[in-house]
Amino acid sequence: MADFHAIIPAGGSGTRLWPLSRRGRPKSLLDLTGAGRTLLQATWDRLVPLTGKDRIHVVAGAEHAEVIGDQLPKLQNLIIEPDARDSMPAIGLALTHIVRQNPEAIAGTFAADHSIDDPAGFRTAITHGVRIAETGSLCTIGVTPTHASGAYGYIQTGSPAGIDGAPTARHVNRFVEKPDASTAESYLTSGDWLWNAGIFIGAAAEILRLLGSYQPGLSDALHAYTAHGGDWADIPPMAVDYAIAQPAAADGKLMTIPAEFGWKDIGDFATLADIRTGTFEDDALTLLTDASGLVINNSGRAISVLGIDDAVVVDTGDNVLITTRSYAQRVKDLPAQWRARGRDDLT
Amino acid sequence: MADFHAIIPAGGSGTRLWPLSRRGRPKSLLDLTGAGRTLLQATWDRLVPLTGKDRIHVVAGAEHAEVIGDQLPKLQNLIIEPDARDSMPAIGLALTHIVRQNPEAIAGTFAADHSIDDPAGFRTAITHGVRIAETGSLCTIGVTPTHASGAYGYIQTGSPAGIDGAPTARHVNRFVEKPDASTAESYLTSGDWLWNAGIFIGAAAEILRLLGSYQPGLSDALHAYTAHGGDWADIPPMAVDYAIAQPAAADGKLMTIPAEFGWKDIGDFATLADIRTGTFEDDALTLLTDASGLVINNSGRAISVLGIDDAVVVDTGDNVLITTRSYAQRVKDLPAQWRARGRDDLT
Repeated sequence: MADFHAIIPAGGSGTRLWPLSRRGRPKSLLDLTGAGRTLLQATWDRLVPLTGKDRIHVVAGAEHAEVIGDQLPKLQNLIIEPDARDSMPAIGLALTHIVRQNPEAIAGTFAADHSIDDPAGFRTAITHGVRIAETGSLCTIGVTPTHASGAYGYIQTGSPAGIDGAPTARHVNRFVEKPDASTAESYLTSGDWLWNAGIFIGAAAEILRLLGSYQPGLSDALHAYTAHGGDWADIPPMAVDYAIAQPAAADGKLMTIPAEFGWKDIGDFATLADIRTGTFEDDALTLLTDASGLVINNSGRAISVLGIDDAVVVDTGDNVLITTRSYAQRVKDLPAQWRARGRDDLT
Repeated sequence: MADFHAIIPAGGSGTRLWPLSRRGRPKSLLDLTGAGRTLLQATWDRLVPLTGKDRIHVVAGAEHAEVIGDQLPKLQNLIIEPDARDSMPAIGLALTHIVRQNPEAIAGTFAADHSIDDPAGFRTAITHGVRIAETGSLCTIGVTPTHASGAYGYIQTGSPAGIDGAPTARHVNRFVEKPDASTAESYLTSGDWLWNAGIFIGAAAEILRLLGSYQPGLSDALHAYTAHGGDWADIPPMAVDYAIAQPAAADGKLMTIPAEFGWKDIGDFATLADIRTGTFEDDALTLLTDASGLVINNSGRAISVLGIDDAVVVDTGDNVLITTRSYAQRVKDLPAQWRARGRDDLT
């Protein structure tokens, strides 16, 4: 394979999973699946066979450098961002580093906090994506939906791309943010739509060139920061999807590989309950009577839940969250409420 | 007033208030009202003006003797029952002690775990009850209902008793256990029914005589235990209501004083929520977001409740209970479930 580098922006906090995720220990640094590896470690494990250990670039805040070093002792490229400004600035920073090493390099960006059940299927899809990048186009991996979900973004596929070495590749028509339930249902039945897995692959220099074309302000501020000691705070926060992928799709420059490799974004406790309920119910310290749901008991204390269906209980020792599955997306509001009470230590 | 003695059976455990109440610290030994005194201490405070400190007899298990001694340092008569066998054996034991001191004594029995807002109104009602006892009849205090409750037992009043010194006294027609909601509603509108506050007053020797007449087996076993070193385990468990009050009512021997002194039996978390919700919501360690209810936070940890109405959360430090108000009566099933798992320490 070509000189292929992987970028992992790991600056997200995952406040929908508070208090399991905290500012000092964000979602990607937790073993959410119970596999014995954190989400970041599992991402590393999946990528090493594709890139080798020396071509993985993790971008994160200084406050997480130590724990990332502990979790990935063989990581060679940890890039510190002064603060989290969404994914595009972090990715732009890593792309700049990569282009300096090799102007011809191919780069892929991978979320630090997604879960994938089938690493072999993942590797096949990425290999096809790299072929597309070698032709000068940009590629995103789209996940074939298994159900109608309002929790994920969607990609509408267009005509076959006809690229040698990537037989299933298609053009991308457009991106859509998290749709409502009936729209998600119509997407599922149409068969034209894929989940946006947040994976983008392209020639590193080409991605930076597109950034300059689509987002000149962000691009200039990034260049000032990396080349002339400019101020990181001048770079506007922006997600890579909006900054590059959407305009590239509109320009006909974005292809997708439809894939099925058991992808999940464990974005909130409802998603986590889907994969963990069975495990936690049997916990010797948890009693569920006329109740169901997810109890994460890391406190060593006894927890009894009586008469609540779809309960979500998280006890981290200093912090107890009690809610239900239908409020999973609202959990993100709580850390701010504790901060407003002067309890930053709880968030 | 005559030689009036008070009996407080304090053997109940209050499992509906678990884990706030535990086997080692039953309901009566807790400050449930937030008044700064436990329910037992408040009962003592109400009775001392009527009896003096030397005529109050507390009946309890040996495992609670130390904490009762701490809570009531001036208690002179602590009677140990080998195990809890409901109220009649405990009361019979105390009556035997009282009759040995003075065969003419009047005795009243008072639950250790009820709450009363108006001690002066209470004293007036008891004084009238003692008058009835002096005529040779038995008296129960009936509380005028303030609402239809399925959580309390009821007393049906009959004709005026015409007793000097107790102008409001009436005959009792019958006792009814906790009724269903529509029956409780009809009781409220009829005006003939009072709540059974568990207070019975009579000449001590007369109560023991009635016990011998209505429950000869229990009476004989009690006599064997107190006089000849018989076995406590031979005494059948029975409540004083069934053992004496109901048959005495059927015999026309039971009178009642209708009274209003802010009586409450805080029997479960629903009742406790009625009197404590406001207080606990403001607790600096408790965050209620789109939620309401009772959070008792004795753990020093932060508790966030999101999206649950009428929540009941009790965190005692080693033990967390999470339920809702409508399950308040089911809480009593939980300690047994923990014991079945070998966790007697939690109950």
